[in-house]
Amino acid sequence: MYQYLTHKLRTCLAQRFFSSTTNSLINSRFLHSSPVVTNMSSTAGVVIPCKAAVAWEAGKPLVIERVEVAPPQEMEVRIKVKYTSLCHTDLYFWEAKGQTPLFPRIFGHEAAGIVESVGEGVSDLCVGDHVLPVFTGECGECAHCKSEESNMCDLLRIDTDRGVMHSDGKSRFSINGTPINHFVGTSTFSEYTVIHSGCLAKINPKAPMDKVCVLSCGISTGLGATLNVAKPKKGSIVAVFGLGAVGLAAAEGARIAGASRIIGIDLNPNRFEEAKKFGVTEFLNPKDFDVPIQKVIADVTNGGVDRSIECTGNINAMISAFECVHDGWGVAVLVGVPNKDAVFMTKPINLLNERTLKGTFFGNYKPRTDLPSVVEMYMNKQLELDKFITHRVPFSDINKAFDLMLKGEGLRCIISMED
Amino acid sequence: MYQYLTHKLRTCLAQRFFSSTTNSLINSRFLHSSPVVTNMSSTAGVVIPCKAAVAWEAGKPLVIERVEVAPPQEMEVRIKVKYTSLCHTDLYFWEAKGQTPLFPRIFGHEAAGIVESVGEGVSDLCVGDHVLPVFTGECGECAHCKSEESNMCDLLRIDTDRGVMHSDGKSRFSINGTPINHFVGTSTFSEYTVIHSGCLAKINPKAPMDKVCVLSCGISTGLGATLNVAKPKKGSIVAVFGLGAVGLAAAEGARIAGASRIIGIDLNPNRFEEAKKFGVTEFLNPKDFDVPIQKVIADVTNGGVDRSIECTGNINAMISAFECVHDGWGVAVLVGVPNKDAVFMTKPINLLNERTLKGTFFGNYKPRTDLPSVVEMYMNKQLELDKFITHRVPFSDINKAFDLMLKGEGLRCIISMED
Repeated sequence: MYQYLTHKLRTCLAQRFFSSTTNSLINSRFLHSSPVVTNMSSTAGVVIPCKAAVAWEAGKPLVIERVEVAPPQEMEVRIKVKYTSLCHTDLYFWEAKGQTPLFPRIFGHEAAGIVESVGEGVSDLCVGDHVLPVFTGECGECAHCKSEESNMCDLLRIDTDRGVMHSDGKSRFSINGTPINHFVGTSTFSEYTVIHSGCLAKINPKAPMDKVCVLSCGISTGLGATLNVAKPKKGSIVAVFGLGAVGLAAAEGARIAGASRIIGIDLNPNRFEEAKKFGVTEFLNPKDFDVPIQKVIADVTNGGVDRSIECTGNINAMISAFECVHDGWGVAVLVGVPNKDAVFMTKPINLLNERTLKGTFFGNYKPRTDLPSVVEMYMNKQLELDKFITHRVPFSDINKAFDLMLKGEGLRCIISMED
Repeated sequence: MYQYLTHKLRTCLAQRFFSSTTNSLINSRFLHSSPVVTNMSSTAGVVIPCKAAVAWEAGKPLVIERVEVAPPQEMEVRIKVKYTSLCHTDLYFWEAKGQTPLFPRIFGHEAAGIVESVGEGVSDLCVGDHVLPVFTGECGECAHCKSEESNMCDLLRIDTDRGVMHSDGKSRFSINGTPINHFVGTSTFSEYTVIHSGCLAKINPKAPMDKVCVLSCGISTGLGATLNVAKPKKGSIVAVFGLGAVGLAAAEGARIAGASRIIGIDLNPNRFEEAKKFGVTEFLNPKDFDVPIQKVIADVTNGGVDRSIECTGNINAMISAFECVHDGWGVAVLVGVPNKDAVFMTKPINLLNERTLKGTFFGNYKPRTDLPSVVEMYMNKQLELDKFITHRVPFSDINKAFDLMLKGEGLRCIISMED
């Protein structure tokens, strides 16, 4: 029977064999080359009926439905979602103002869960592994994955227009035979979901999933923008444009890096008090000045900040974030995604005076390779996550999470799938 | 008497004392704290009459005149220029089309010479030292000089509108008492010139000055743009926009870095043959295509180049140079200085897809700290300079160098001050 097991299962069994000397049952079975599927869950290979929050129409409340989740195919993994949270990207595509609408759809991409079963060819994940799903992946084979610098995998790069799996172009979700669209390959607003194995980061099983689930997207995006791309030195002055969850994660990165001053820029003065928890030392509201905010920043920093991180997606903020960095060494990092018709404009002298302008995608983290270490940063108390979690709701109240975000209240609302 | 000597002279004497055991005269004098001025030239402290090529009016041929060169003041050095070469910046300010005209003026900023005498406070240069004058300086004290990343010294940064010295706001050149303006603090079209010590790089005295003089400006600018800023890895694909001296120096940097392909982009097809000597492997003329050249480059490189260096100063070339780099890891470096009204424009997605845009000034070389090692790159045959030198003229024929540049002929014309 062993020969028919997937390479993945053999690897998992081998790992267990070498890592354990106490499980004589598995060991002896492995030694006799006849392992039975003790490593498989009882639901492996069969359709799982479960609850999912389905968006039937743009902007309409999600409906908790009974969906059927098909087994994972080649290189796919089915996971039991434990906790998920709501990110602006879910809201943006749920509202579908501007982009191509794709409904019915199961949204959700910030989450933590446990592997229920794996498809053929999956060799690095086992049943029971704790994982973070990620909206972008890491195939490990393409030029981007092989580059030390890029995390923009050719195969599994985010595709918001796709509602089906890569392997067969079909959805794994259905209701009475009607397929329901996936969202960015994750669709975590479901008790079970099927995800390409390249979009799952295996994490420390001791990490509390109701906390680290927020590392799936926004928090890592802001944190990595600072730590991986802006790379402020200890004692630097850092400006952060936009004090939502991503911007505050960028500030958290600056705090971790040892910035001496962190200047928060936002149009909403109510955000400063909360921002202080994230190390923001000063607050500037562009509405309070009649000159461009980059000039104000230059004035209060003797010529400009060492690093800036733009997390609003507003094109004028992007230009200000670039022009507020010091000549000679300043680095500006763009994170926010602007309107598709926006154009970035600046005088070339701003560049020629030795400023650097960079953009980042998911904080330049390679999902599978790098996220486990971000979880460890939380485990060793270097990274503070609790302060990002401002609300919690049971899955049945998922629409409350949307309401909170629409009102601009709080940072992250954790949705518990089992409550 | 020793106590009245400048700190510089004491340092120089101390250096000689510790470096030589044979010069008993100097040694014994030093030991008795009564060194005489054997280290001073006979002309130290007095006005030197000599020949200089004076630009009396914008665009009119230079006139070789008898000028008087005053002694160096505090932190200044007077040097005997041995070789100088003509750079486009001289031509640009000589033509004075657009910028504030400042005449009469002595142009020239690419050169090599020998220290004749030093002013008070100069501690790191001695009479007889071989030096390269540089149009921008390194005071060693400002935030830029103290930064590892910047070479844009606050005190001695290039100022093309300045025609006088920093210390007293006066010129060191005069004709019958009428002051003649300096140019970018160097004015090397004169047998003797006075330069701030922060704008002089002390180089290996074995280096042939008729070759390394070209490292004062353009060649180091292009070379450093590649080696210090773009930093291509071995095997990279590099695009160079503009195949004049600066662009070819950028290509030389890519050759030294081990680029696998160097794509030269220029509107003049005659430049390709010469460019081959600098490692350029492919040539693209934007005039040959009816789509933007960045699309052509993406097509022939499977998505874009790893690094690009823009050396034309044309705003459209700057945009193309940025947009032709590969997403995920591409870095574009802007070198050329555009028209002051030009605006750099691009879609933000080009940045967000993990491209980097940087500008550079003098190839990010700190003049005093870094140029000596560039000279050593030539001395150890890593850097090839001879191929940049296409013409030579005696000082008396300096206007021929202008004619050659106006016709677009050759790369660098060396002007020998003693021929």
